[in-house]
Amino acid sequence: MSLPDKVTIIEVGPRDGLQNEKNTIPTETKIQFIKALKQANIQEMELTSFVSPKWVPQMKDADDVIEQCLDNTRNFVLAPNQKGVERFYQSGANDIAVFVGVSNTFNKKNINKSTDESLEELKPLIADLKQNGKFVRACVSTAFYCPYEGKVPAEKTIKLCEAFAHCGVNELSVADTVGMATPKEVYQLFNSLKSIQPKNILITGHFHNTRGTALANIYASLEAGVDRFDSSAGGLGGCPFAPGATGNVATEDVLYMLHGMGIDTGVDIEKVIHAVDVVAPFMTRTLDSKLYHLQKATASTEA
Amino acid sequence: MSLPDKVTIIEVGPRDGLQNEKNTIPTETKIQFIKALKQANIQEMELTSFVSPKWVPQMKDADDVIEQCLDNTRNFVLAPNQKGVERFYQSGANDIAVFVGVSNTFNKKNINKSTDESLEELKPLIADLKQNGKFVRACVSTAFYCPYEGKVPAEKTIKLCEAFAHCGVNELSVADTVGMATPKEVYQLFNSLKSIQPKNILITGHFHNTRGTALANIYASLEAGVDRFDSSAGGLGGCPFAPGATGNVATEDVLYMLHGMGIDTGVDIEKVIHAVDVVAPFMTRTLDSKLYHLQKATASTEA
Repeated sequence: MSLPDKVTIIEVGPRDGLQNEKNTIPTETKIQFIKALKQANIQEMELTSFVSPKWVPQMKDADDVIEQCLDNTRNFVLAPNQKGVERFYQSGANDIAVFVGVSNTFNKKNINKSTDESLEELKPLIADLKQNGKFVRACVSTAFYCPYEGKVPAEKTIKLCEAFAHCGVNELSVADTVGMATPKEVYQLFNSLKSIQPKNILITGHFHNTRGTALANIYASLEAGVDRFDSSAGGLGGCPFAPGATGNVATEDVLYMLHGMGIDTGVDIEKVIHAVDVVAPFMTRTLDSKLYHLQKATASTEA
Repeated sequence: MSLPDKVTIIEVGPRDGLQNEKNTIPTETKIQFIKALKQANIQEMELTSFVSPKWVPQMKDADDVIEQCLDNTRNFVLAPNQKGVERFYQSGANDIAVFVGVSNTFNKKNINKSTDESLEELKPLIADLKQNGKFVRACVSTAFYCPYEGKVPAEKTIKLCEAFAHCGVNELSVADTVGMATPKEVYQLFNSLKSIQPKNILITGHFHNTRGTALANIYASLEAGVDRFDSSAGGLGGCPFAPGATGNVATEDVLYMLHGMGIDTGVDIEKVIHAVDVVAPFMTRTLDSKLYHLQKATASTEA
């Protein structure tokens, strides 16, 4: 059983994380958070999204964030539709994220379109983006389970991934959106996705820790050869709705496990924790991050 | 990669769990908790311990608990020394747990004896217990890391396990006491322990979720063929000292992952959650259990 020597962390806290938190964070704080994450040597990050400020007020400062934070690392901006893609072109950003849910019901409840309709809308947009030299990340949500449909058949997820690959996307971020997956099915799906063409497409695991299985699922993915993972500093985001319940797996917890196994990420765990300090005061709940609280407890004992 | 079809859960909440919680639970509540766990079809459980009530007031009702809860399943009573073993004989219980830390420093800080001294004291006691037909569980703590010595060499852990095996113990419960282990080292250690003689010795994994890695470590253990795990209903115990930081992995979270992979435990997850309800009002902190809070949140949404 050989694991990858190196893993790339795609930090999703500033976008996927903050977008799902109750409070709106001041733009200056958000920028400070992003810069602190870059200080920790995060090389790929979901920065913000071009969504309607009416629906997602937390992202209304997308243009300011992009203007302040673009640099020569990979900075993803999410765009859910044609209008978002237009704003993306105007922003000067180079890396875009689009998304579709494997589950029809989930996709409809989210963006009022079927999975196929979403894909059809995205196809010409992706073709244009590729022609313009943009890096396209396709987020495949409800890849394992759907809150409405239950277990999502692996074949459906593979089919959607293949369709995206055929469109020429650079990356597939395959997500256990509801945090219900367990390691065996994770290993099996990612093992199947290895055969997706072209060979150089990047495959990323995106796990939620809602039922505590995120790190186990990451370990199973590593065994299947996956070497890219989305994670969120401080465990921000992911529809948290109960004390102890969570969404996105915390970046610092992922780093602890990876580094403990001798896997290099290039990311500084202490500096990620410093970045969390920037946004923690604005959160309405106890953050779900083991390392963050452990570090705070140790610091207060030593003080 | 084949995983076991069946796994045995050794519930440690009533002893290892409650012993490390701040509040003392009324004896009646404790008995109700234990009985509720048995209702969930728990077949092996750490019931209580014969330790000095001066040091561990939570366990001063050991005799009452044993009297009320002994049945034809495996009920472990922990005894740290000769005096504890004497009380064990008087109690009428059949299954005993003894413990030694692999780390000398840890063992000394805990029970004021070196690892070797502890083992030498236990040897004749274990021989007697075996002659009297008792089931002996040896808890091997700090098997991976020590809070004082850091990384514990696998060779030292293997050596202590072999020494216990040589004494004729029935079970080795190998513990990541400080919750610092990561899956690769867990797989490697348990893979090495497969060769321990006699072949029919039971090998159990005991993981703490302090850094979020418990379920990943259990998954790695399963891959190494381990089919017995200690866990604690509600995630009780394990030196909790910070919000979000934890000790023992929660039984219900372990069950979720195992059942999700089609592994049979015979234990009813909903009934374990009902058992947690019995003690939850007495806890001084938010319990670290994903499934417990998720179930409460769902119930309050539906109500």
